[in-house]
Amino acid sequence: MSVELKKHIEEIVSLADEEFEYISSHFKPKQLKKHQYLIQTDEHVKTIYFVIKGLLKATYIDLNGKEYIIQFAMENWWISDFQAFYNNVKSITNISCLENVELLGISKEDLDKICHENHKMEHFFRVKNSSGYVALQQRILSLLTTNPRERFEQFSCQYPQLGQRLSKTIIAAYLGISRETLSRLSAKTVI
Amino acid sequence: MSVELKKHIEEIVSLADEEFEYISSHFKPKQLKKHQYLIQTDEHVKTIYFVIKGLLKATYIDLNGKEYIIQFAMENWWISDFQAFYNNVKSITNISCLENVELLGISKEDLDKICHENHKMEHFFRVKNSSGYVALQQRILSLLTTNPRERFEQFSCQYPQLGQRLSKTIIAAYLGISRETLSRLSAKTVI
Repeated sequence: MSVELKKHIEEIVSLADEEFEYISSHFKPKQLKKHQYLIQTDEHVKTIYFVIKGLLKATYIDLNGKEYIIQFAMENWWISDFQAFYNNVKSITNISCLENVELLGISKEDLDKICHENHKMEHFFRVKNSSGYVALQQRILSLLTTNPRERFEQFSCQYPQLGQRLSKTIIAAYLGISRETLSRLSAKTVI
Repeated sequence: MSVELKKHIEEIVSLADEEFEYISSHFKPKQLKKHQYLIQTDEHVKTIYFVIKGLLKATYIDLNGKEYIIQFAMENWWISDFQAFYNNVKSITNISCLENVELLGISKEDLDKICHENHKMEHFFRVKNSSGYVALQQRILSLLTTNPRERFEQFSCQYPQLGQRLSKTIIAAYLGISRETLSRLSAKTVI
Protein backbone atom coordinates (compact mmCIF):
# COMPACT_ATOMS: atom_id res chain seq x y z
CA MET A 1 0.00 0.00 0.00
CA SER A 2 1.48 3.29 -1.10
CA VAL A 3 0.82 6.46 0.87
CA GLU A 4 1.87 8.52 -2.18
CA LEU A 5 -0.64 6.85 -4.52
CA LYS A 6 -3.48 7.18 -1.99
CA LYS A 7 -2.75 10.87 -1.46
CA HIS A 8 -2.56 11.38 -5.23
CA ILE A 9 -5.92 9.68 -5.93
CA GLU A 10 -7.56 11.48 -2.99
CA GLU A 11 -6.78 14.84 -4.55
CA ILE A 12 -9.70 14.00 -6.85
CA VAL A 13 -11.84 11.26 -5.21
CA SER A 14 -12.32 9.93 -1.67
CA LEU A 15 -11.71 6.25 -1.07
CA ALA A 16 -12.39 4.09 1.98
CA ASP A 17 -9.28 2.25 3.23
CA GLU A 18 -10.58 -1.12 2.01
CA GLU A 19 -11.41 0.36 -1.42
CA PHE A 20 -7.90 1.75 -1.73
CA GLU A 21 -6.34 -1.52 -0.57
CA TYR A 22 -8.23 -3.41 -3.27
CA ILE A 23 -7.27 -0.85 -5.94
CA SER A 24 -3.61 -0.73 -4.89
CA SER A 25 -3.44 -4.55 -5.03
CA HIS A 26 -3.53 -4.15 -8.84
CA PHE A 27 -0.33 -2.07 -8.86
CA LYS A 28 3.10 -3.71 -8.91
CA PRO A 29 6.20 -1.96 -7.51
CA LYS A 30 9.21 -1.54 -9.78
CA GLN A 31 12.60 -0.06 -8.95
CA LEU A 32 15.20 1.02 -11.49
CA LYS A 33 18.57 2.72 -11.19
CA LYS A 34 19.72 5.88 -12.95
CA HIS A 35 20.42 5.23 -16.68
CA GLN A 36 18.28 2.05 -16.78
CA TYR A 37 15.47 1.79 -19.32
CA LEU A 38 11.81 1.37 -18.40
CA ILE A 39 10.52 1.10 -21.99
CA GLN A 40 12.46 0.80 -25.26
CA THR A 41 11.31 1.45 -28.81
CA ASP A 42 9.58 -1.31 -30.73
CA GLU A 43 8.17 -3.02 -27.66
CA HIS A 44 4.57 -3.84 -26.80
CA VAL A 45 3.63 -1.69 -23.81
CA LYS A 46 1.21 -3.26 -21.36
CA THR A 47 1.82 -1.02 -18.33
CA ILE A 48 1.37 2.57 -17.20
CA TYR A 49 3.49 3.80 -14.28
CA PHE A 50 2.93 6.15 -11.35
CA VAL A 51 6.15 7.73 -10.09
CA ILE A 52 6.66 7.47 -6.32
CA LYS A 53 10.24 8.72 -6.38
CA GLY A 54 12.78 9.81 -8.99
CA LEU A 55 12.84 11.32 -12.44
CA LEU A 56 12.46 9.83 -15.93
CA LYS A 57 12.47 11.06 -19.50
CA ALA A 58 10.56 9.79 -22.54
CA THR A 59 12.50 10.41 -25.75
CA TYR A 60 12.24 9.87 -29.48
CA ILE A 61 15.41 9.25 -31.50
CA ASP A 62 15.26 10.15 -35.19
CA LEU A 63 17.02 8.38 -38.07
CA ASN A 64 20.08 10.59 -37.60
CA GLY A 65 20.36 9.66 -33.93
CA LYS A 66 19.13 13.04 -32.66
CA GLU A 67 17.20 12.76 -29.41
CA TYR A 68 13.96 14.68 -28.76
CA ILE A 69 12.35 14.74 -25.33
CA ILE A 70 8.61 14.17 -25.33
CA GLN A 71 7.93 14.11 -21.61
CA PHE A 72 9.51 14.10 -18.19
CA ALA A 73 7.97 12.38 -15.19
CA MET A 74 8.76 12.98 -11.55
CA GLU A 75 6.96 12.30 -8.25
CA ASN A 76 3.15 12.04 -8.65
CA TRP A 77 3.29 11.99 -12.47
CA TRP A 78 2.25 9.11 -14.72
CA ILE A 79 4.42 7.80 -17.51
CA SER A 80 4.32 5.28 -20.34
CA ASP A 81 4.42 5.25 -24.12
CA PHE A 82 0.77 6.30 -24.09
CA GLN A 83 0.20 5.68 -27.78
CA ALA A 84 1.49 2.12 -27.48
CA PHE A 85 -0.37 1.57 -24.19
CA TYR A 86 -3.78 2.84 -25.32
CA ASN A 87 -3.72 1.89 -29.01
CA ASN A 88 -2.00 -1.50 -28.69
CA VAL A 89 0.80 -0.61 -31.11
CA LYS A 90 4.57 -0.89 -30.61
CA SER A 91 6.43 1.80 -28.68
CA ILE A 92 8.16 4.56 -30.63
CA THR A 93 9.79 6.05 -27.53
CA ASN A 94 12.51 5.19 -25.04
CA ILE A 95 11.80 5.87 -21.39
CA SER A 96 14.87 5.94 -19.16
CA CYS A 97 15.75 7.00 -15.64
CA LEU A 98 17.54 10.28 -14.94
CA GLU A 99 17.66 9.31 -11.23
CA ASN A 100 17.04 6.08 -9.30
CA VAL A 101 13.28 5.55 -9.45
CA GLU A 102 10.49 3.84 -7.53
CA LEU A 103 7.37 3.20 -9.58
CA LEU A 104 3.98 1.55 -9.31
CA GLY A 105 2.85 -0.10 -12.54
CA ILE A 106 -0.66 -1.13 -13.57
CA SER A 107 -1.57 -3.11 -16.68
CA LYS A 108 -4.15 -1.90 -19.24
CA GLU A 109 -6.34 -4.85 -18.27
CA ASP A 110 -6.23 -3.98 -14.56
CA LEU A 111 -6.66 -0.26 -15.22
CA ASP A 112 -9.84 -0.99 -17.19
CA LYS A 113 -10.93 -3.45 -14.47
CA ILE A 114 -10.60 -1.03 -11.54
CA CYS A 115 -12.29 1.71 -13.60
CA HIS A 116 -15.14 -0.64 -14.49
CA GLU A 117 -15.55 -1.91 -10.91
CA ASN A 118 -15.24 1.45 -9.21
CA HIS A 119 -16.93 4.49 -10.76
CA LYS A 120 -14.77 6.82 -8.65
CA MET A 121 -11.62 5.45 -10.30
CA GLU A 122 -13.14 5.94 -13.75
CA HIS A 123 -13.82 9.56 -12.70
CA PHE A 124 -10.26 9.93 -11.35
CA PHE A 125 -8.70 8.86 -14.65
CA ARG A 126 -11.15 10.95 -16.72
CA VAL A 127 -10.06 14.03 -14.78
CA LYS A 128 -6.34 13.11 -14.99
CA ASN A 129 -6.67 12.60 -18.75
CA SER A 130 -8.40 15.94 -19.27
CA SER A 131 -5.68 17.75 -17.24
CA GLY A 132 -3.04 15.99 -19.32
CA TYR A 133 -4.82 17.06 -22.52
CA VAL A 134 -4.86 20.71 -21.43
CA ALA A 135 -1.15 20.60 -20.48
CA LEU A 136 -0.21 19.18 -23.89
CA GLN A 137 -2.27 21.82 -25.69
CA GLN A 138 -0.35 24.48 -23.77
CA ARG A 139 2.93 22.87 -24.84
CA ILE A 140 1.82 22.89 -28.51
CA LEU A 141 0.93 26.56 -28.23
CA SER A 142 4.31 27.24 -26.66
CA LEU A 143 6.15 25.33 -29.43
CA LEU A 144 4.21 27.19 -32.14
CA THR A 145 4.26 30.70 -30.76
CA THR A 146 7.35 31.31 -28.65
CA ASN A 147 10.98 31.98 -29.49
CA PRO A 148 13.73 30.07 -27.62
CA ARG A 149 14.09 32.76 -24.94
CA GLU A 150 10.36 32.81 -24.15
CA ARG A 151 10.18 29.01 -24.19
CA PHE A 152 13.06 28.76 -21.73
CA GLU A 153 11.48 31.34 -19.42
CA GLN A 154 8.11 29.58 -19.52
CA PHE A 155 9.78 26.26 -18.66
CA SER A 156 11.82 27.76 -15.78
CA CYS A 157 8.70 29.40 -14.40
CA GLN A 158 6.34 26.44 -14.89
CA TYR A 159 8.66 23.72 -13.56
CA PRO A 160 11.21 25.38 -11.23
CA GLN A 161 12.00 22.12 -9.36
CA LEU A 162 12.44 20.15 -12.57
CA GLY A 163 14.92 22.67 -13.97
CA GLN A 164 17.22 22.11 -11.00
CA ARG A 165 17.24 18.33 -11.46
CA LEU A 166 18.05 18.34 -15.20
CA SER A 167 21.23 18.96 -17.17
CA LYS A 168 21.25 21.83 -19.67
CA THR A 169 21.67 19.36 -22.55
CA ILE A 170 18.43 17.68 -21.54
CA ILE A 171 16.51 20.93 -21.04
CA ALA A 172 17.67 22.07 -24.51
CA ALA A 173 16.43 18.81 -26.08
CA TYR A 174 13.04 19.25 -24.38
CA LEU A 175 12.67 22.84 -25.56
CA GLY A 176 13.78 21.99 -29.11
CA ILE A 177 16.66 24.47 -29.00
CA SER A 178 20.43 23.98 -29.26
CA ARG A 179 22.67 23.51 -26.21
CA GLU A 180 24.53 26.70 -27.23
CA THR A 181 21.34 28.78 -27.39
CA LEU A 182 20.31 27.51 -23.96
CA SER A 183 23.70 28.42 -22.47
CA ARG A 184 23.36 31.97 -23.75
CA LEU A 185 19.83 32.21 -22.30
CA SER A 186 20.58 30.64 -18.93
CA ALA A 187 23.60 32.93 -18.42
CA LYS A 188 20.99 35.68 -18.08
CA THR A 189 18.55 33.70 -15.90
CA VAL A 190 19.15 31.61 -12.80
CA ILE A 191 17.32 28.29 -13.09
CA MET B 1 -32.23 13.61 -30.21
CA SER B 2 -29.21 13.47 -32.49
CA VAL B 3 -28.46 10.36 -34.50
CA GLU B 4 -24.87 11.57 -34.95
CA LEU B 5 -24.22 11.93 -31.21
CA LYS B 6 -25.78 8.52 -30.44
CA LYS B 7 -23.65 6.83 -33.10
CA HIS B 8 -20.56 8.62 -31.80
CA ILE B 9 -21.13 7.57 -28.17
CA GLU B 10 -21.99 4.02 -29.20
CA GLU B 11 -18.58 3.59 -30.81
CA ILE B 12 -17.39 3.21 -27.20
CA VAL B 13 -20.40 2.32 -24.97
CA SER B 14 -23.88 0.88 -25.54
CA LEU B 15 -26.86 2.90 -24.36
CA ALA B 16 -30.55 1.99 -24.15
CA ASP B 17 -32.80 4.43 -26.05
CA GLU B 18 -34.18 5.94 -22.82
CA GLU B 19 -30.65 6.36 -21.42
CA PHE B 20 -29.57 8.20 -24.54
CA GLU B 21 -32.68 10.38 -24.53
CA TYR B 22 -31.96 11.44 -20.96
CA ILE B 23 -28.29 12.15 -21.79
CA SER B 24 -29.06 14.05 -24.97
CA SER B 25 -31.59 16.22 -23.07
CA HIS B 26 -28.51 17.91 -21.50
CA PHE B 27 -27.18 19.02 -24.89
CA LYS B 28 -28.36 22.24 -26.54
CA PRO B 29 -28.27 22.71 -30.33
CA LYS B 30 -26.40 25.70 -31.73
CA GLN B 31 -26.07 26.84 -35.34
CA LEU B 32 -23.54 29.34 -36.64
CA LYS B 33 -22.68 30.61 -40.09
CA LYS B 34 -19.26 30.66 -41.76
CA HIS B 35 -17.01 33.38 -40.24
CA GLN B 36 -19.05 33.64 -37.01
CA TYR B 37 -17.31 33.15 -33.67
CA LEU B 38 -18.18 30.39 -31.20
CA ILE B 39 -15.71 31.51 -28.49
CA GLN B 40 -13.60 34.66 -28.30
CA THR B 41 -10.52 35.37 -26.15
CA ASP B 42 -10.95 36.59 -22.61
CA GLU B 43 -14.34 34.93 -22.11
CA HIS B 44 -15.42 32.47 -19.45
CA VAL B 45 -16.11 29.18 -21.22
CA LYS B 46 -18.91 27.09 -19.75
CA THR B 47 -19.61 24.80 -22.73
CA ILE B 48 -17.97 22.04 -24.74
CA TYR B 49 -19.31 21.33 -28.24
CA PHE B 50 -19.83 18.23 -30.36
CA VAL B 51 -19.75 18.96 -34.10
CA ILE B 52 -22.68 17.50 -36.04
CA LYS B 53 -21.89 19.32 -39.28
CA GLY B 54 -19.30 21.82 -40.50
CA LEU B 55 -15.75 22.86 -39.75
CA LEU B 56 -14.21 25.17 -37.12
CA LYS B 57 -10.76 26.39 -36.13
CA ALA B 58 -9.37 27.29 -32.71
CA THR B 59 -6.66 29.93 -32.99
CA TYR B 60 -4.30 31.96 -30.85
CA ILE B 61 -3.34 35.48 -31.92
CA ASP B 62 -0.02 36.80 -30.59
CA LEU B 63 0.83 40.41 -29.67
CA ASN B 64 1.92 41.10 -33.26
CA GLY B 65 -1.42 39.89 -34.65
CA LYS B 66 0.01 36.65 -36.05
CA GLU B 67 -2.51 33.80 -35.97
CA TYR B 68 -1.58 30.25 -34.89
CA ILE B 69 -3.99 27.36 -35.28
CA ILE B 70 -4.30 25.10 -32.26
CA GLN B 71 -7.02 22.77 -33.43
CA PHE B 72 -9.57 22.10 -36.14
CA ALA B 73 -12.89 20.41 -35.48
CA MET B 74 -15.14 18.75 -38.02
CA GLU B 75 -17.98 16.19 -37.86
CA ASN B 76 -17.76 13.94 -34.75
CA TRP B 77 -15.02 16.01 -33.11
CA TRP B 78 -15.31 17.94 -29.84
CA ILE B 79 -14.22 21.55 -29.49
CA SER B 80 -13.90 24.26 -26.86
CA ASP B 81 -11.16 26.26 -25.20
CA PHE B 82 -10.35 23.21 -23.08
CA GLN B 83 -8.06 25.04 -20.68
CA ALA B 84 -10.76 27.63 -19.93
CA PHE B 85 -13.49 24.95 -19.80
CA TYR B 86 -11.70 22.55 -17.44
CA ASN B 87 -9.67 24.98 -15.32
CA ASN B 88 -12.27 27.75 -14.99
CA VAL B 89 -9.97 30.44 -16.40
CA LYS B 90 -10.63 32.88 -19.23
CA SER B 91 -10.26 31.78 -22.84
CA ILE B 92 -6.98 32.53 -24.63
CA THR B 93 -8.26 31.28 -27.99
CA ASN B 94 -10.75 32.31 -30.66
CA ILE B 95 -12.92 29.59 -32.14
CA SER B 96 -14.58 30.50 -35.43
CA CYS B 97 -16.45 28.74 -38.20
CA LEU B 98 -14.76 27.88 -41.50
CA GLU B 99 -18.12 26.57 -42.79
CA ASN B 100 -21.73 26.85 -41.56
CA VAL B 101 -21.88 24.62 -38.47
CA GLU B 102 -24.38 22.64 -36.43
CA LEU B 103 -23.25 21.90 -32.90
CA LEU B 104 -24.48 20.31 -29.70
CA GLY B 105 -23.23 22.03 -26.57
CA ILE B 106 -23.08 20.71 -23.01
CA SER B 107 -22.14 22.71 -19.92
CA LYS B 108 -19.37 21.64 -17.50
CA GLU B 109 -22.04 21.18 -14.82
CA ASP B 110 -24.16 18.91 -17.03
CA LEU B 111 -21.11 17.01 -18.31
CA ASP B 112 -20.09 16.23 -14.73
CA LYS B 113 -23.72 15.37 -13.91
CA ILE B 114 -24.22 12.83 -16.72
CA CYS B 115 -20.80 11.31 -15.96
CA HIS B 116 -21.68 11.04 -12.27
CA GLU B 117 -25.13 9.58 -12.93
CA ASN B 118 -24.09 7.17 -15.66
CA HIS B 119 -20.83 5.24 -15.28
CA LYS B 120 -20.85 4.41 -19.00
CA MET B 121 -20.67 8.13 -19.87
CA GLU B 122 -17.76 8.59 -17.45
CA HIS B 123 -16.05 5.72 -19.27
CA PHE B 124 -16.87 7.26 -22.67
CA PHE B 125 -15.24 10.58 -21.78
CA ARG B 126 -12.23 8.88 -20.13
CA VAL B 127 -11.58 7.02 -23.38
CA LYS B 128 -12.15 10.14 -25.53
CA ASN B 129 -9.75 12.12 -23.31
CA SER B 130 -7.04 9.47 -23.53
CA SER B 131 -7.36 9.35 -27.35
CA GLY B 132 -7.11 13.14 -27.43
CA TYR B 133 -4.00 12.99 -25.25
CA VAL B 134 -2.31 10.51 -27.57
CA ALA B 135 -3.18 12.62 -30.66
CA LEU B 136 -1.67 15.76 -29.07
CA GLN B 137 1.48 13.88 -28.09
CA GLN B 138 1.86 12.84 -31.74
CA ARG B 139 1.46 16.47 -32.82
CA ILE B 140 4.17 17.58 -30.35
CA LEU B 141 6.49 14.91 -31.70
CA SER B 142 5.74 16.07 -35.22
CA LEU B 143 6.41 19.73 -34.33
CA LEU B 144 9.70 18.82 -32.64
CA THR B 145 11.10 16.33 -35.10
CA THR B 146 9.90 17.05 -38.62
CA ASN B 147 10.87 19.60 -41.23
CA PRO B 148 8.12 21.53 -43.10
CA ARG B 149 7.99 19.00 -45.96
CA GLU B 150 7.56 16.01 -43.61
CA ARG B 151 4.98 17.90 -41.53
CA PHE B 152 2.95 18.72 -44.62
CA GLU B 153 3.09 15.11 -45.84
CA GLN B 154 2.02 13.79 -42.42
CA PHE B 155 -0.92 16.20 -42.34
CA SER B 156 -2.05 15.35 -45.90
CA CYS B 157 -1.84 11.66 -45.10
CA GLN B 158 -3.46 11.82 -41.63
CA TYR B 159 -6.35 14.15 -42.54
CA PRO B 160 -6.98 13.82 -46.31
CA GLN B 161 -10.59 15.10 -46.06
CA LEU B 162 -9.62 18.06 -43.93
CA GLY B 163 -6.93 19.17 -46.39
CA GLN B 164 -9.53 19.48 -49.13
CA ARG B 165 -11.78 21.72 -47.00
CA LEU B 166 -9.07 24.17 -45.90
CA SER B 167 -7.30 27.03 -47.66
CA LYS B 168 -3.50 26.84 -47.98
CA THR B 169 -3.11 29.89 -45.73
CA ILE B 170 -4.91 28.04 -42.96
CA ILE B 171 -3.00 24.78 -43.45
CA ALA B 172 0.27 26.77 -43.30
CA ALA B 173 -0.78 28.44 -40.02
CA TYR B 174 -1.63 25.01 -38.55
CA LEU B 175 1.70 23.51 -39.56
CA GLY B 176 3.67 26.53 -38.32
CA ILE B 177 5.22 27.16 -41.76
CA SER B 178 4.97 30.10 -44.14
CA ARG B 179 2.37 30.30 -46.91
CA GLU B 180 5.25 30.43 -49.45
CA THR B 181 6.87 27.26 -48.09
CA LEU B 182 3.52 25.46 -48.26
CA SER B 183 2.97 26.54 -51.86
CA ARG B 184 6.37 25.13 -52.85
CA LEU B 185 5.57 21.86 -51.07
CA SER B 186 2.03 21.44 -52.35
CA ALA B 187 3.14 22.06 -55.94
CA LYS B 188 4.87 18.67 -55.59
CA THR B 189 2.00 16.91 -53.79
CA VAL B 190 -1.70 16.77 -54.56
CA ILE B 191 -3.77 17.38 -51.43
